[in-house]
Amino acid sequence: MTYCVAVKLDAGLVFLSDSRTNAGVDQISTFRKMMVYERPGDRFMVMLSAGNLSISQQVREILQIQQVENGAKPPITIWNAKSMFDAARVLGAAVRRVHDQDGEALQKAGLDFNTSLILGGQIGGEHPGMYMIYPLGNAIAASPETPFLQIGESKYGKPILDRILRPQTRLEDAARTAIVSLDSTIRSNLSVGLPVDLVLIRRDDLRITQRMRLAGDSPLYAQIHGSWSHKLEQAVTTLPRFPWEEA
Amino acid sequence: MTYCVAVKLDAGLVFLSDSRTNAGVDQISTFRKMMVYERPGDRFMVMLSAGNLSISQQVREILQIQQVENGAKPPITIWNAKSMFDAARVLGAAVRRVHDQDGEALQKAGLDFNTSLILGGQIGGEHPGMYMIYPLGNAIAASPETPFLQIGESKYGKPILDRILRPQTRLEDAARTAIVSLDSTIRSNLSVGLPVDLVLIRRDDLRITQRMRLAGDSPLYAQIHGSWSHKLEQAVTTLPRFPWEEA
Repeated sequence: MTYCVAVKLDAGLVFLSDSRTNAGVDQISTFRKMMVYERPGDRFMVMLSAGNLSISQQVREILQIQQVENGAKPPITIWNAKSMFDAARVLGAAVRRVHDQDGEALQKAGLDFNTSLILGGQIGGEHPGMYMIYPLGNAIAASPETPFLQIGESKYGKPILDRILRPQTRLEDAARTAIVSLDSTIRSNLSVGLPVDLVLIRRDDLRITQRMRLAGDSPLYAQIHGSWSHKLEQAVTTLPRFPWEEA
Repeated sequence: MTYCVAVKLDAGLVFLSDSRTNAGVDQISTFRKMMVYERPGDRFMVMLSAGNLSISQQVREILQIQQVENGAKPPITIWNAKSMFDAARVLGAAVRRVHDQDGEALQKAGLDFNTSLILGGQIGGEHPGMYMIYPLGNAIAASPETPFLQIGESKYGKPILDRILRPQTRLEDAARTAIVSLDSTIRSNLSVGLPVDLVLIRRDDLRITQRMRLAGDSPLYAQIHGSWSHKLEQAVTTLPRFPWEEA
């Protein structure tokens, strides 16, 4: 499986993805699930992908190499889209195109057309935008009430995001929260694994502000992992007592 | 759905269950999912149930009112079983009996025979035992490496259990950890809801040591909920900094 999370804050955007791909538990490999599209000063977009790897790789190819035939003249691409809303529709059209090519063969073999994508970014003077694109090509946007989107094995890491993330959260705090969310998921589920890719973009920078790859032996990842476990233990032992316990 | 968790510690056993039952999101009701069987000084058992409510209610009836026909003479029941292993087999036989009665009708309607049960307790001078019983009537036991069992909507609340629970954990700390685990699940998933039933049994007490029902407005639950959110926020903001941040 996969775990990816993206956060839309007043201060900017955060993207985090794991790199484990598996077909059963005995066929595990490492693939990057984050793609960055960037024309500094004009626009950037980050795409996160989960689900069938052959589908998401085709979607990437279509986005990078070809223009999506979506009726407009000239055709709208992620490089000339005027808004993130339009860019999300371009991505949706790419998903539908892969579905047209492969959907029937997958269905005949009893396989779902299983893909989920997140696309976030900023174009020129527009507000930053962040969308989740479903297998049918339709999309929903992140909002102030729901400032994060997850794809893949999302349940383990959701509680910490629900409790911490608000639009006002600092960019780096949101990135640390995302790392904790992913670290918890890795610990509880074999299908999510290191290394992880992390990107932070400050609002109106219109380029990647910070980008890093963290492995299990990266000092920062190891520090956050160890520190979090320690803090949780402290938190549990200092919770309110039951009536029958001594103070 | 449901969320139940049971913990087997050196110090004793902890059981926690929510009370939400739903058929779709527009048909929600409250049912107790914890049954306590107790003959103080001789034995106690606690059963937690998830899945199809009609199945778990039938299983309870069979356990309470009737003896399970399992070939032994006299038939083994939870009241004369000599070990928790035998008691778990009695429960498995009850599940199979319900399957014999209802399994075919459910299958014809396209419904799974969906039930999961946890049975934990202690009989006389035996070690305490804790088992998860599957829809086929087979069972697995909790172990020092995996000192907790979950049924129902288990993913949201698993990371905190994975990080905190060890056989050496104090009974009350384990109970608080279970409450936090359930509180996180409630916050992230509509199908799990208050009030919750909590039981703690100290090893060799051979009776329920502490038992409480907590609603959202119970002072203890509200305190743990509020305190935990606050502690997590503090924990996030004091995690190690990224290299580019000021100390």
